[in-house]
Amino acid sequence: MQVVTTIAELRAQLDPMRREGRSIGFVPTMGYLHQGHAALVQAARRECDVVVVSIFVNPLQFAPSEDYESYPRDPERDRGILAAAEVDFLFQPDVREMYPRPLLTQVSVPELSATLEGRTRPTHFQGVATVVLKLFHIVGPHRAYFGQKDGQQVAVVRRLIEDLDLPIDLRAVETVREPDGLALSSRNVYLSPEERQAAPCLHEALLQGREAALAGQGSRAVQAAIEERIRRTPLACLDYAAVVDPRTMQPKSDLTGPVMLAVAASLGRTRLIDNLVLEL
Amino acid sequence: MQVVTTIAELRAQLDPMRREGRSIGFVPTMGYLHQGHAALVQAARRECDVVVVSIFVNPLQFAPSEDYESYPRDPERDRGILAAAEVDFLFQPDVREMYPRPLLTQVSVPELSATLEGRTRPTHFQGVATVVLKLFHIVGPHRAYFGQKDGQQVAVVRRLIEDLDLPIDLRAVETVREPDGLALSSRNVYLSPEERQAAPCLHEALLQGREAALAGQGSRAVQAAIEERIRRTPLACLDYAAVVDPRTMQPKSDLTGPVMLAVAASLGRTRLIDNLVLEL
Repeated sequence: MQVVTTIAELRAQLDPMRREGRSIGFVPTMGYLHQGHAALVQAARRECDVVVVSIFVNPLQFAPSEDYESYPRDPERDRGILAAAEVDFLFQPDVREMYPRPLLTQVSVPELSATLEGRTRPTHFQGVATVVLKLFHIVGPHRAYFGQKDGQQVAVVRRLIEDLDLPIDLRAVETVREPDGLALSSRNVYLSPEERQAAPCLHEALLQGREAALAGQGSRAVQAAIEERIRRTPLACLDYAAVVDPRTMQPKSDLTGPVMLAVAASLGRTRLIDNLVLEL
Repeated sequence: MQVVTTIAELRAQLDPMRREGRSIGFVPTMGYLHQGHAALVQAARRECDVVVVSIFVNPLQFAPSEDYESYPRDPERDRGILAAAEVDFLFQPDVREMYPRPLLTQVSVPELSATLEGRTRPTHFQGVATVVLKLFHIVGPHRAYFGQKDGQQVAVVRRLIEDLDLPIDLRAVETVREPDGLALSSRNVYLSPEERQAAPCLHEALLQGREAALAGQGSRAVQAAIEERIRRTPLACLDYAAVVDPRTMQPKSDLTGPVMLAVAASLGRTRLIDNLVLEL
């Protein structure tokens, strides 16, 4: 695995490969890798000739009050994981390489970014859209891999790709979970032992919502089922439970076709999210 | 010259050429071509292996009150001009090919878009930035050619390319003028004979501004010199005269380094713009 820190060097490496007709798979990450990232890398490895992983904690997608400074980092360990997973290139730029001048260009998908996560994190998806578009231009991948755990991010990036005619195939990879159902997340490391024990309530809540949906209940009842399970968990504080269209992120009242059940809750100072997509 | 109307077909044509290492030059236009466009095509022909010209009147960059419907069109004549100029591909999509679904993604460079043209056309450069980015993704050019006549557009696209790490070399090509100094523009066709006769006042005003600047006068005096020449023209109605940094479009008080003198005026119902970039 080659570790590359500059845009120019990465292009110099990838351009000849692209000309040879080799397909490039790209997995953008913020590091502190876990088995969820590993699943993305494995999918890329399976489907592409060349696998590029980026590690960049993007300041633009954190609000000033959020955990940009304290976001967990372990570059040594990350490199070991990626080398073992037979990644070809690790792109690990610093902030000055990615933002060498004031960023005057704004990229956003407001309609998909205002709901759910956007209500508590109003600037988050603009930061995501911007850095993902920059990374797409830098890497020039044929396929890009994102975890379904961040379902709204998948929707935003998918729409960005469609609206802007990017020649990239977005691959959403199923959420990887702990044995007790907790979705893997770099932020799980923040949880105290008690909070960790309570954390599977998000997944359990989604399963209750799914049960209600499969039983033919309406969207309000499904949402209530999710909420009820979170409220029964003393350590958990519900942020939202929602029943939305997985492409538009708009509330879905008619429960047919694809439906996304989404939940966000805080355990102590750690905010977790999870979702399930059903085909009804 | 091949005429291509779909994105898929254009990609199918260009991808193998890109893989062969041939350089692609791209000239985006709204058609109704004149010698200014021809100069862009000639520059592309000189510098690139493959030349792609697009003709697309982009509804997104017209306000509802503007001339989208009546914007002059002459596809037959345009094709003849481009074929004679040895263009390889004319990309001529219709509106449904470019906007097949509601566009939810927004791309803009607000700080460069609010001044000058942006004051009377507040949504114009967001439309330009969006369609140019889409076309860049569709064509995948190595170099893109824009006329310096639209100086603010050049600044917006240049910043878009820099901020988003697009691997594209922007080439700004000098304004082509009629013998009497009038900058070529597709909108010149709107001018009545009397208005046409008065229209060189924009260029003359800029020359007066340049004279003042070269004589060491300050930016207010330079601006006043431009304004004065327009005001002396009975048929012309001044919109703005400005002395700005050609990269940031912000007013420049210290007249050293590169300086852009810009002017906009209406002759009857036709609004014309022009600019000069000086190195002081």
